[in-house]
Amino acid sequence: MTKISTIGEFGLIDRFSKLFLNGLREQNITGIGDDCAIIPLNESESWLVTTDMLIEDRHFLLNRISAFELGFKSLAVNLSDIAAMGGDPHSAFLSIGIPNKIEVEWLDGFFKGIKELADNTNTLLLGGDTTKSPDKLIINILVLGKAITKNIKKRSAAEPGDLLCVTGNVGDSGGGLQVMLENKPVDDDAKGLIKAHHLPYPHLNEGKFLSTYKDVHAMIDLSDGIESDIHRIMEAAGCGAEIALDKLPVSDTLKKLANKYDWNVYELAMCSGEDYKLMVTVNPAQYDSINSEYKKQFNRDLSIIGKIKIDKSLKTMFKGKLIDLAKHGYDHFKNE
Amino acid sequence: MTKISTIGEFGLIDRFSKLFLNGLREQNITGIGDDCAIIPLNESESWLVTTDMLIEDRHFLLNRISAFELGFKSLAVNLSDIAAMGGDPHSAFLSIGIPNKIEVEWLDGFFKGIKELADNTNTLLLGGDTTKSPDKLIINILVLGKAITKNIKKRSAAEPGDLLCVTGNVGDSGGGLQVMLENKPVDDDAKGLIKAHHLPYPHLNEGKFLSTYKDVHAMIDLSDGIESDIHRIMEAAGCGAEIALDKLPVSDTLKKLANKYDWNVYELAMCSGEDYKLMVTVNPAQYDSINSEYKKQFNRDLSIIGKIKIDKSLKTMFKGKLIDLAKHGYDHFKNE
Repeated sequence: MTKISTIGEFGLIDRFSKLFLNGLREQNITGIGDDCAIIPLNESESWLVTTDMLIEDRHFLLNRISAFELGFKSLAVNLSDIAAMGGDPHSAFLSIGIPNKIEVEWLDGFFKGIKELADNTNTLLLGGDTTKSPDKLIINILVLGKAITKNIKKRSAAEPGDLLCVTGNVGDSGGGLQVMLENKPVDDDAKGLIKAHHLPYPHLNEGKFLSTYKDVHAMIDLSDGIESDIHRIMEAAGCGAEIALDKLPVSDTLKKLANKYDWNVYELAMCSGEDYKLMVTVNPAQYDSINSEYKKQFNRDLSIIGKIKIDKSLKTMFKGKLIDLAKHGYDHFKNE
Repeated sequence: MTKISTIGEFGLIDRFSKLFLNGLREQNITGIGDDCAIIPLNESESWLVTTDMLIEDRHFLLNRISAFELGFKSLAVNLSDIAAMGGDPHSAFLSIGIPNKIEVEWLDGFFKGIKELADNTNTLLLGGDTTKSPDKLIINILVLGKAITKNIKKRSAAEPGDLLCVTGNVGDSGGGLQVMLENKPVDDDAKGLIKAHHLPYPHLNEGKFLSTYKDVHAMIDLSDGIESDIHRIMEAAGCGAEIALDKLPVSDTLKKLANKYDWNVYELAMCSGEDYKLMVTVNPAQYDSINSEYKKQFNRDLSIIGKIKIDKSLKTMFKGKLIDLAKHGYDHFKNE
């Protein structure tokens, strides 16, 4: 018998997605393998579908996150996938497995968190399933979205030579987690990072804006961390990438706390995940004009962090020099 | 603080569904409260959406159901909701939380079970989420279906005077569970009942056939058992019902084993659930002509088990006499 760990999550998805390819091409449907499945709706629009399961003690600790925050975040992580395709959310479906320890007042807060983000993003909660759970709280949300078909950005559309960009600061969410894991004092700075971890606001506006440019090629949401998520683009597009650690946009708050607590800010920005910003690849000839419009709209840069390469490897640069992370890890250039 | 048990699953759904009604009527969307949510697709068709979460040790025991059966059943319970609206399945989305004890070969069987039923019903598996689970195996499937809008059958459409009918035998699934719980010998009869419990085949053809008749009013799938599911129709339609226990269609196998093991066949047929047949209400003036077509198509009767009443209570009859179940329970008329 084979342990799952020997093939890994992505090996597993690969193994089983092959079974379910029949009929997709004929119907112009995109199944497993991008941020969302894509189902044609009419001549110009498509449905987007994405789903995420969150399990207590695996994805969250009940004594660390409030009911409101968990409701908000459970929806946010799904909306972020809709954002990554350039879509608008339409509706959400919630399945919840509730253990005995959960009380009605806790659920009041949880639904308030869902409603806050749902109302802000015009997402309708249309159904789901409620059941008892033997011990852990289990949350599964599925979101339906809509997009203009020609604007949908697939991971596979990255091209060698493209600039690699992110839509906002990275690492704050990982910093917030670090504050909690190390039981650091929760001052205003720490609060800001914890908020990034517990109440990520999905980049729906950024995703939709960028989707209108044909020179924006691939788009993905940053859920697992840049170092992991860039591999999803590389695999889908059959290319490599080069990322400059010193170009990753990080907040002043994260820099300050990283210095104070001796965290490696580059490692947090590159690897910690759950930032729910978007990573895009852009035709370099059009970057300036796209960025100037982006800046007008969002008051910040579409930050260049690297580029897409033909050579199918991930190269990590630091101040213009190639870094061998396998050899040195992040400690070699800690907070320089 | 309030325990969930004080308001119950349906109290909970009531409490929170109220929060999410904004915008539904204007867009002609049906949200929480029927077998499926309904989203208009075009002038004549609608999308149907339904989802079910199954948790180890709550909904199944890993040492009692095979991987293939669990895959098949996880999809079947959702397709049954599509059947209850008169729809065709379109696609499925699977979230799975996998504990360490699950091995790759087990998952091979599980996906084979999903694929068997998906291929038989033209359901495309288009996506999902794969994650580790701390201890229990967790499965959430959501199914999108399509229906001709004017044919969709809502629970609320039941009318006083309607005949109450079921599309097939009830109680076999409960009998199969009983065989396992009591560790009875697994002879051919027992195998048949266990199969009804582990491999329920959703009544998609029956649901679609019945949906074409305007004199079929309400339709629901039998997941919790007639005694519970009739209350969903009564609440939605604001009516009551009368059910004749001796008219419930039960298989010869169930009768035989109920006699042998001293089970109450009426209680199994009325309360045990997981039959995944359909219960419908029919204009009595049209029953004969609908049943004659049904019989041609499916080689069995659309069995009359009672009728819909104005008085908002559930009356249980046995051989023409009113039975007070609250007083006597089922033992009073056991296997008569």
